[in-house]
Amino acid sequence: MRSFAIGVDLGGTNLRIAAVEETGCQLELITGFTDLDRGRERVMADISSAIKRLIARFTPSHRLSGVGIGIPGVIDLERGTLCSASNLPGWSDYPVRRELERLLGTPVLLENDANCAALGEKWLGAGKRVENLCMLTLGTGVGGGLVFSGKPWHGATGMAGELGHMTVIPDGHPCGCGSRGCLEQYASAVAIRRMALEQLAKSGRRDLLALARNPEFGSQTVFEYAERGEAWAKNVFEIVGSTLGIALANLINGLNLPMYVIGGGVSAAWSSFSPAMFRELEKRSIVFRVSDPSSSQHKSTIVTRTELGGSAGLLGAARLPMLASRSRAFFSLAV
Amino acid sequence: MRSFAIGVDLGGTNLRIAAVEETGCQLELITGFTDLDRGRERVMADISSAIKRLIARFTPSHRLSGVGIGIPGVIDLERGTLCSASNLPGWSDYPVRRELERLLGTPVLLENDANCAALGEKWLGAGKRVENLCMLTLGTGVGGGLVFSGKPWHGATGMAGELGHMTVIPDGHPCGCGSRGCLEQYASAVAIRRMALEQLAKSGRRDLLALARNPEFGSQTVFEYAERGEAWAKNVFEIVGSTLGIALANLINGLNLPMYVIGGGVSAAWSSFSPAMFRELEKRSIVFRVSDPSSSQHKSTIVTRTELGGSAGLLGAARLPMLASRSRAFFSLAV
Repeated sequence: MRSFAIGVDLGGTNLRIAAVEETGCQLELITGFTDLDRGRERVMADISSAIKRLIARFTPSHRLSGVGIGIPGVIDLERGTLCSASNLPGWSDYPVRRELERLLGTPVLLENDANCAALGEKWLGAGKRVENLCMLTLGTGVGGGLVFSGKPWHGATGMAGELGHMTVIPDGHPCGCGSRGCLEQYASAVAIRRMALEQLAKSGRRDLLALARNPEFGSQTVFEYAERGEAWAKNVFEIVGSTLGIALANLINGLNLPMYVIGGGVSAAWSSFSPAMFRELEKRSIVFRVSDPSSSQHKSTIVTRTELGGSAGLLGAARLPMLASRSRAFFSLAV
Repeated sequence: MRSFAIGVDLGGTNLRIAAVEETGCQLELITGFTDLDRGRERVMADISSAIKRLIARFTPSHRLSGVGIGIPGVIDLERGTLCSASNLPGWSDYPVRRELERLLGTPVLLENDANCAALGEKWLGAGKRVENLCMLTLGTGVGGGLVFSGKPWHGATGMAGELGHMTVIPDGHPCGCGSRGCLEQYASAVAIRRMALEQLAKSGRRDLLALARNPEFGSQTVFEYAERGEAWAKNVFEIVGSTLGIALANLINGLNLPMYVIGGGVSAAWSSFSPAMFRELEKRSIVFRVSDPSSSQHKSTIVTRTELGGSAGLLGAARLPMLASRSRAFFSLAV
């Protein structure tokens, strides 16, 4: 009998739940909106009923290995609560794991969404051939996930991977975290919109400035203008790429991992920001510049785009119970 | 019968060799100068004869577990050669391990000196109670070492821990590595001397500027002036501390390790640079600011000085063969 797991990707806007086989084959996908206005209990009830439907449907033919859920925010792994979640207002300190376990009557594994994305890419995406990788997710904010020896790296208190708050410009733009010049202020969708407004104001393009103040105007639109060759939009992605390059060079020089994967919605603009990113890497990372000793052609460090796109986090969440059943130390903290 | 190991700390100036018991008890220490002018073969012969003396002296009463050597530079772990070593001119691509093994007739373990220092602190120093730590050695340059699960972290090609080349000021001082604004340009002994000259020129203190041009003038003198309250010298350590704080905040946000140890000669100036360092950490690291969930008093992240001082690297080198005999995977690379 084959086994399957259920993965949940709980975002601030979208909710996606899938039944996935151990082989990576997706049996069924349920998608919907995260209806935050109706309260967290309602959202949890939606998740629970979708999971129950999938269990009822597939347990006749498959064995359930467990349920994993990826959530945007800082997670207290030992208690299974959300310490902070800027995209899920009102969810701070909510005992997500305990609530879902109560509704389902089955154990649930909780994980930060960027760690899930990193795990998904390692399992079925760009990182299939490596055991260690780092993922940066460029979305509304910038998240980070580390996979060491095939498992998420949690650090001493479960807070590892806060890579969006690496300083890239010490006296740069203020960040909600209390610091200045964090990567998130230059490489997220929110930052791209802000920088576009700044560039348009500087360029004197008043026609576009009015357009850009429309709430619909976002990083995708800026990308389209950059692809058409508009200087103000190209400047924005020059900043995205160079700040990403600074942050990645620090990670590469420090960790010397074989692979770094860029995901999240903004990664769709790869063609606009990656030239500046690679230029910065060549300049700033002695480790990146050195070729693999076993090959004169290839770099030992691979920096690449997500292969799974928006599914990385969902698949990684489904992977959690599969790994947990193999290793008791899966959720250990790095004391 | 007790066992012992031999550790070698081969620096650009000093050469230190010790016989150390498994308990950490130092049986004997041999110190000398690294006489680079006489050529690397001569230095290797000096090392080999000192090791043979220690083996002859202690093997009647002890079992030899092996020989470990710490070297400043980028090491190709698989081949046992030095890829680059700025403080050992003429040693690049020299097969250090093979040569020493030939002279001794016994296997030798080679490791980067900052990794050795990190391992020494984990074994007998500040990191005794943790399994994971990061060490920054502030010496002529700035080195870095990571210990994960009690063992040195080598990364994919053995180049992990190049923390002195983390960018802290993107458009800052040019670095020998080809980048700009590396930590090494602000927190090393060489950088402190350069920044002192800059500060003195700015302050118009012509009397001191002449003194400072003397080759004997170094980071220790700047520290003494800072402790006496001289503004120009205090400014220098303000820069040392704030740039260290930026680099550490990035590491803490990314890795969430329980401990970060500052060593190397410059760490003696802890009282002058650490206030600015901690100020920056409080501002830039969300992970540093969060208290340990299991304790309302203590931070979960400890940033502290070396406990072993100049002996950290030597003791860590002696530790290498002890760990290797316990784990076959000790020298694995992180593919």
